[in-house]
Amino acid sequence: MAKHMSSEMDRTFWALADPTRRGVLERLAKDPGLSVSELARSFSLKLPGMTKHLDVLSDAGLITRTKTGRTVAVSLAPAPMQEAMAWLSQYERFWTVSLDRLVALVEEDAAR
Amino acid sequence: MAKHMSSEMDRTFWALADPTRRGVLERLAKDPGLSVSELARSFSLKLPGMTKHLDVLSDAGLITRTKTGRTVAVSLAPAPMQEAMAWLSQYERFWTVSLDRLVALVEEDAAR
Repeated sequence: MAKHMSSEMDRTFWALADPTRRGVLERLAKDPGLSVSELARSFSLKLPGMTKHLDVLSDAGLITRTKTGRTVAVSLAPAPMQEAMAWLSQYERFWTVSLDRLVALVEEDAAR
Repeated sequence: MAKHMSSEMDRTFWALADPTRRGVLERLAKDPGLSVSELARSFSLKLPGMTKHLDVLSDAGLITRTKTGRTVAVSLAPAPMQEAMAWLSQYERFWTVSLDRLVALVEEDAAR
């Protein structure tokens, strides 16, 4: 189970480690259901190039593709992002602590 | 600037796409300042193997290494995780919407 979870998280973070793939997710958040060819056009990619990126996103569970006739509509699937965020949120206390320290330093400085 | 930000985020997500590297961050959250050899030992890795993982984490700005004599202490640097979380939080409304829909469905079902 831990191993299974690991490899899911691996795929999510790996899919997010590319600016085009993050761009596709941002685009889909604004325009849900865009077609593969519209996505390819807006990133100036050929269809096979966009399809490769969509395959990585789909393997990570970050998008779903629905075929109607000859058109493939792409939609955002946010669950893996929620899991990634839950993992990252474990570390929230570290940057909160750093911010508290910063505020304390600024106040100290102002009190001088 | 956008490009610079992109490549920083690429490195962060890429560094997080490995269970050992995520494990190292989890370990450092509990035991800050662990040495490289202690980390290698707890992940049953040889020193060069652990050093490679630490290089990836360090390139992403996720850890700092401090050398004192012959010991290298490793600490967590949470800033890139905060940026990654800020990026992910753009999508929070999507899973919140899905959860709202789920609650509505359950309530509908209960009302029958």
